[in-house]
Order: sequence, then structure tokens, then C-alpha cells
Amino acid sequence: METSITNKSAWARFVDKNIFIQFFDVTLRGCAQVMFQNNPLTGLLFFIAIFTGAFLEKIPEVAFGCLLGTVIATLTAYISKLDIDSLRSGLYGYNGCLVGVALPAFLENTPFTWLSVILGSIVSVIATISLMDFLRSWKVSALTAPFVLVSWTILLASYSFLGIKGVSLPEPTLPHQYIEPIGHHPSIDLVVVVFRGVSEVFLLNSVIVGVIFTIGLAVSSIWAAIFAILGSLLAFSIASLLKADIASIHAGLYSFSAVLTAIALGSTFNKPSWRGLIYAIIGIIFTVFVQGALDVVLKPFGIPTLTMPFVLASWLFLIPNQDIMPNHRR
Amino acid sequence: METSITNKSAWARFVDKNIFIQFFDVTLRGCAQVMFQNNPLTGLLFFIAIFTGAFLEKIPEVAFGCLLGTVIATLTAYISKLDIDSLRSGLYGYNGCLVGVALPAFLENTPFTWLSVILGSIVSVIATISLMDFLRSWKVSALTAPFVLVSWTILLASYSFLGIKGVSLPEPTLPHQYIEPIGHHPSIDLVVVVFRGVSEVFLLNSVIVGVIFTIGLAVSSIWAAIFAILGSLLAFSIASLLKADIASIHAGLYSFSAVLTAIALGSTFNKPSWRGLIYAIIGIIFTVFVQGALDVVLKPFGIPTLTMPFVLASWLFLIPNQDIMPNHRR
Amino acid sequence: METSITNKSAWARFVDKNIFIQFFDVTLRGCAQVMFQNNPLTGLLFFIAIFTGAFLEKIPEVAFGCLLGTVIATLTAYISKLDIDSLRSGLYGYNGCLVGVALPAFLENTPFTWLSVILGSIVSVIATISLMDFLRSWKVSALTAPFVLVSWTILLASYSFLGIKGVSLPEPTLPHQYIEPIGHHPSIDLVVVVFRGVSEVFLLNSVIVGVIFTIGLAVSSIWAAIFAILGSLLAFSIASLLKADIASIHAGLYSFSAVLTAIALGSTFNKPSWRGLIYAIIGIIFTVFVQGALDVVLKPFGIPTLTMPFVLASWLFLIPNQDIMPNHRR
Repeated sequence: METSITNKSAWARFVDKNIFIQFFDVTLRGCAQVMFQNNPLTGLLFFIAIFTGAFLEKIPEVAFGCLLGTVIATLTAYISKLDIDSLRSGLYGYNGCLVGVALPAFLENTPFTWLSVILGSIVSVIATISLMDFLRSWKVSALTAPFVLVSWTILLASYSFLGIKGVSLPEPTLPHQYIEPIGHHPSIDLVVVVFRGVSEVFLLNSVIVGVIFTIGLAVSSIWAAIFAILGSLLAFSIASLLKADIASIHAGLYSFSAVLTAIALGSTFNKPSWRGLIYAIIGIIFTVFVQGALDVVLKPFGIPTLTMPFVLASWLFLIPNQDIMPNHRR
Repeated sequence: METSITNKSAWARFVDKNIFIQFFDVTLRGCAQVMFQNNPLTGLLFFIAIFTGAFLEKIPEVAFGCLLGTVIATLTAYISKLDIDSLRSGLYGYNGCLVGVALPAFLENTPFTWLSVILGSIVSVIATISLMDFLRSWKVSALTAPFVLVSWTILLASYSFLGIKGVSLPEPTLPHQYIEPIGHHPSIDLVVVVFRGVSEVFLLNSVIVGVIFTIGLAVSSIWAAIFAILGSLLAFSIASLLKADIASIHAGLYSFSAVLTAIALGSTFNKPSWRGLIYAIIGIIFTVFVQGALDVVLKPFGIPTLTMPFVLASWLFLIPNQDIMPNHRR
Repeated sequence: METSITNKSAWARFVDKNIFIQFFDVTLRGCAQVMFQNNPLTGLLFFIAIFTGAFLEKIPEVAFGCLLGTVIATLTAYISKLDIDSLRSGLYGYNGCLVGVALPAFLENTPFTWLSVILGSIVSVIATISLMDFLRSWKVSALTAPFVLVSWTILLASYSFLGIKGVSLPEPTLPHQYIEPIGHHPSIDLVVVVFRGVSEVFLLNSVIVGVIFTIGLAVSSIWAAIFAILGSLLAFSIASLLKADIASIHAGLYSFSAVLTAIALGSTFNKPSWRGLIYAIIGIIFTVFVQGALDVVLKPFGIPTLTMPFVLASWLFLIPNQDIMPNHRR
């Protein structure tokens, strides 16, 4: 994730003057950092996409949760007086942003769910510092692990606590071999599938949302946008070749983690190069296997993988970066 | 955990003179270190509480196991010539102490169970060194993780080995949403619930045991005693608000990990302060969520959480200590 | 694992002259490193054993997979220009070697399974670098963890992907207490059981294979061969005493991880000594408990433990090496 504040523009000078504008700017960057961009305009486009998608899918609580989570996490970082460079880049906000998406998406709309969003967003900041500290020696980022760990904890706890009852969590079952349905496969619109995959990064499932996300990426980094599309397309192809469940493929469920792996390996932590491209492609393909594996591991527990396949695959591929990709790091 | 030997009193000089008295002293401190106290009197009171509770509940094997585990672990540390300061403070004994409580509590009373207690206590020392080494860079303690990992291994293995058959392990099941029972809730005596929570740190379930534990804490550190009660009370309140299973709440099952988190965050690793108090409260609340989550994760495996919720929550909150609580560490 | 190239013999000089002979040499060493030997003759004997066993058991795909995995992993290391000393010692090859054994052993014989072997072998090299980097501070080796993690991922994913369907994976179930069968136990030939245990390191189940493996070890290190037999024998005894499932004991399923722990603790990472012997014996015994525990943990997921019990137990016992075994490391 980029930590330098880009071009001291009129906006940057404006932001420096007013703490409220600064907070607004950091909140937007927090949302943008979900896809590794340190850019308030990207964040604004992301929020627009999320609100559009959430209202289209009649789950407005997801959009409000997303905003609330980002604000609470950012506020926590300010109050705790954390490292100002990371703070200003939105690096303490993106996990809260996703906690705010995930909890209202799976839990009943009760006051305790909203208190859990607030607690989860605060703890996501503490988990971010913990993981940053933990991972420092290996020079890898916490990625979205704080979000996943905090959300998993609260979603699992929902089976113990009636006050935050799960409403759309998958039912706990033992894994079993998927059986291919008889009959014709539905015809596939590749464009639809690719952008749905991008959209699912925020647990949304619509083409328009994916398109706005991609535009948001392009505003900040054209390579990020290209790799997002490449990741979604490649993951779709691999999952189809391996004969995964058609409905899951079409819903983009094999793509969203691969999209993040693609942006991370392809553009954020490596400069684009042929060597890097091949490495990223192997990483994206392996992310699809990790997605398939983690789906199975979590079946008995009745919780979704969230973006953990991306986190695990990317850590695996980022730690050797300095061995495999010499001289690429600042 | 405090590593300095407190006040060179008559007792301390007496201990220095005789290796058997020293061993006795270190064994007592080992028991006291379960709740982070480096104090032989605390350890003596803890042993009194454990023997009282175990005999009251007609499970004397738990008390004898506790004593055996502490002695074996302490002996292992002496024979292995480990770091003398840590050894004298009881830091190699407390995990064996808990192994000795947990195995007889859940396994059939057979010779192999007792051999497992001995093996487990020895391995708990090895696991303590491993984890201390592993965690050194992040300046956090192993806490009770060695106890939990060793005990989980042996309890899980009891499903494979008839020689150490489980007798009171929870039956492996898939998680399902808890359903609130119809009818009136039993009336609650707050004092009973709070002290039962403290008592459950050693898997015991009686008020008098909790009271003696708290006195034992107060003898060594009044803040430790205060935070233990605060932790138990707060965990009870949060679990009640979140509508957890009433029977589990009353048995103190949501409190014992929170008690340890409270002592650790509130008094052992931070000096009491307003900032620290708020941080500890967030940590205690999150421990209740981790307890609820881990209960669900372990359901399919038929083993109890032991104190792992405390370990996980405390690691999460202790690693950022130097960022969140500047200048508090020696 | 030994990293020094042994005696600059005629063979060593021959190898230095020709890149193809060198590749052949490194491939053999890769296979030998599964049991920590840096010796091409050991590797050759291992391959002979594997082909013999696989054809005897009518699973030739396991032997070809083994060869393919080692070659692909070695090739990946050459292409990625990894550390030449580790490469030449076969340290990037042994995980691919085992991936090539495990995947064809459990998955349907389809083109996608073979593509998964290739992908898995490539990723095993990346995982090796990752884990080496991760574990550097604690001076412990990655052992066979890269193999296990990559194979688990692909085996778990086989439940999601029809293209790599599992055919001999254990069915996912909840754990339950094993019930001892009524009737006479089959008579046991100790020699058969011990060598089967050694054979199961490569998932094979025949005495002759175990014998050739042991000869292969002896060619490189007589202590390694002795500890392999000791480990297998001790694990058999402990599992019998603890009353594990007779069929599993006889198939060597409690022994193969213990064999590796025995070689690792007894001869590879410690010089043989009385102190080391006692430490190794405790480690071997605990490996049997870890095997029993991990069998239970993996039941709901329908995958085998592979050599993970060895990895976990050995990490636990190797990290304290410098505390428990002072001055033994180079």
C-alpha cells in the first residue's frame, strides 16, 4: 500500500488546513485502501459504488455499516495517536470499512449488531497494529487479515449469542463432493461475470458496482484496474476448467479474492514486469485453489471465507518477494 | 508476569539456604503464576482453594493432578537447567499446573491418564520455552498457551486412544444457533456468579474457591484482585446483554478467560491508568466474543476452549502495547 | 538438513562438469532430503523403493508423480535462481517430491490432477522460501510443512472442484470415541510393522520399501537409519499401549511421522548424545499424541494428516534446542 501522499495539489493543501476536511479525506482513503489505493477520489467512487449496489440489492444497512466502520476505525486511529503517515494514507481505516460491510450483511439488524460493528471497527485497528508489528520482520502488509479475523470472531460468536443472531450465514455442514447438476449450463456473459467478481470484494453482486470500482481503481492506477480485471477473468477461467459449482462461479465467489491477489502481486507490491506477471498469474491461480479449500474448511463452522484466500495466498507469494524479485522494493 | 523476587524477607533468606524449601517455594509460585502472581503465599492460597473445591465437587483427582503437574514441570525446569530467574519466579510451572487440572477433569482415571499428565507437564515446559522464543520479538508472554496447546493435543488424542478415554468431554457436534428457552430466567445472585467466574480459571465451579483465589490475588496485588472481579462482572454483563446461554453464563464459562484478560491488561502488563482502563475494558469485552467464537469453532472437535480465548485476546491487545501505551514498559 | 556437499569425489567432479548430470544429481538429493539426507545415492535408493512399492501396490501414478514433482520443483528453483547451496543440496526439491506422491495417491487420475501436481510442485518451492524466511529467526527448518500445506490446500479444494475429484480421501465425519473390536488381536510381526512405518513416510505400505528406505538412510548416515528404526518401533509401542486402532497401528500410520521426528531430533539437528537421546524419545512419544490429535482434528474435513504431526512436534522440540542443548549447533 502506498504511503506517500500523492501530489500536493489544491486538494492536499485544502485538507491540511481543516481537521474535518482531513478526516473526510482520510475516511475516503480508508475505503480506497481496501483495494490498496491511497487516493480520496478512488474512495469516493468506491463509496458511491457501495451505496448504489447496497440500495439496488435492498441491503442499505451494508452501505451504512461500511461508512460507519470506516469512520469509527479512522476515529480510533486519531484518538490513539497512531503513526500519522499510515493514518493519513487510510491504512487504519480499510479493515473497519470491511467489518462494517460484513457484519450487517450476515447478522440480524439489531442494536447489538450495530454495537458489534462499532466494537469490531475499534478492534480492527488494534488488530491492524498487532499484525503490522507481527509481520514487520518479513516486510509484508497485514492486508485484510484484521478485517477477516475480527469479522470471523463476531460471526462465529453469533452462534452463541441470540443478540447478534446470524440471518444469512451458510448452515454448518460436513463437506461433501460437489455433484455436477444434470442439464445445460446457463449461457455466460463474460463481462457480467468479470465485473461481478470485482463487485464481490465488498460482498456486493452487481455489474454496475464492479464497473464503478474498476473506474475508481483506474483513477488512481491504471495497472491496478488492469490487474483487477485480469484477476477476475483468470479466476473465472480456472474455476470453470476445474468444474467448480456453476452458481458460485457466476456469482463471482471464486473471483473476488483473486482480484485482490492480482492487484497486490501485479501492481501494488511489485512493479509490472514479465517476471512479475508470471509470478502474479501463478499466485492468482493458486488463490482459486485456496478459495476452494477454505470454502471446505469453513463448511462445518457456518461462516464465509471473506477475503482470507487472498490474504493467505498473497502472504505466501509476498514473503519470498525479495528472493524471487530482487531489487524491486524501495 | 513479575520476574523479580519480592522483598528479601526472612522467607526469602530461608528459601535460599535449602534446595528442598526452594523447590517448595518455586512450586507455590508456579501455581500463583496461573494468575500472573510471583508470590508463594498466593500459590499456597490457590492450592488450598483448589483442594477445597476439588473435594467439595468430589473430583479430588483434579487437585492431585494440579499438584503433580506443577511439581513435574518445576522439576523438568530444574533438571534442564533453564534460566534461573524465570525458574525461581514459577514461570515454568504454571502451565504444568493447569495441565494437571485439565487432563484428570476430562479423562478417565486410568494409569495412562496419569502418565499423560506427567508427559504433558514435561512437554508444557518445552512448549513454554518454544513459545517464549517464538514471541520474544514482540515482547509478549507465552501466557497459558503452552497449557492449552498441550492439553488440547492430549484431549483430542483421547478420541484416538482407548487408554486415555474421555469421560466428560463435550460431544462433537456441528454448531447451531442457540435457542432461548421459554419460561422465567432463574434469579441471579451477582456475587455468586462473579466468584464462580474466578473459580473457573482452574475449571472449578464454586463460590468459596473464587473467594479464596481473590484473597490470594489481593495478598500479592490489590489491583490484580480488583481487575479479576471487574473482569468477571463485566464478562457476565456482556454475555447477558448478548443473550448467551443462561446456564453457561451462570456457570462462569464466559467469565474465566475475561478474568485473566482483565488481570493481564489491567494490572500485570500495564500500570493502572485511565487510558489503560479503557483499553482493558475493550479487551475484556472482546474476550467474551472470542469465548463465544471459540466455543463454536471447537464444537465439531469435542474439546473445551480452556483459557485460549484469554490467550488470543490478550496477545491481540498486548502486541500493540508499545504503540497504544507509550513509555509504560520497563 | 545438511547443506554441505559431501566429499568432492569423482562423482562430485563429474556433476560439476555437466548441467544435465547436475540436475539429475540435485533431483536425487531432493528425494533424499525427504528424510534429511544430502546424498544422491540415498535419493536413488529412495526412488527405487518408491517405484518398487508403487508398482507392487498397483499405484504406478504415485511413483511417476513423485519423480515429476521432484523434477518440477528442482526446475523451478533453477529458473528462479534461488540460493545455489540450498538448491544443490536438494532443499527445494523434497517438498515437490512429496506433493507428487500425495496428490496422485488421493485424487482421480485426470489431466487436471497432473496439472495440480505441477502447480503444487511450483508452489511448494515458493512455500519453502516463504517458510524459510518466516522461520529464520528461530533457526528451524521448514521441514515438510510446505508439502503439507500445499497438498492440504489441493486435497481440500478437491471437494469443491469436480476436475480433481478425490477418490481415496477419508469421508468427512465428526470424531467419535474409537471402540475396541471384540475378539483376538491379529498376531504381530514386529519387523513387518517397523518397516511398514518407515515405508509410510512416502504413503507406501510394504516391508520391502521400508527396508530399501532404511538402507538408503544407512548409506548416508548410520545414525539416521538407527533413529528411523527406533522411531518406528517406539511409536508402535506407544500407540499399542495407548490402545489405538489396531489396523491403523499395523498399517504404520502411527509410525511414519515418528520416524521423521526421530531422524530429525536424533541425528539431523542434534549430535547423538545421552541428553539428546532422552529429548528425542520424549519428542517421538509426543509425536504419537500429535498424530492421534491431528487425526481427530482433520476428521470433519476429510483429509489425511500427511507428515504434519512430525512438523508440529519437531518445531516444538527444535525451537528450544539452543536452551536445552547448548553448544550443539554450528
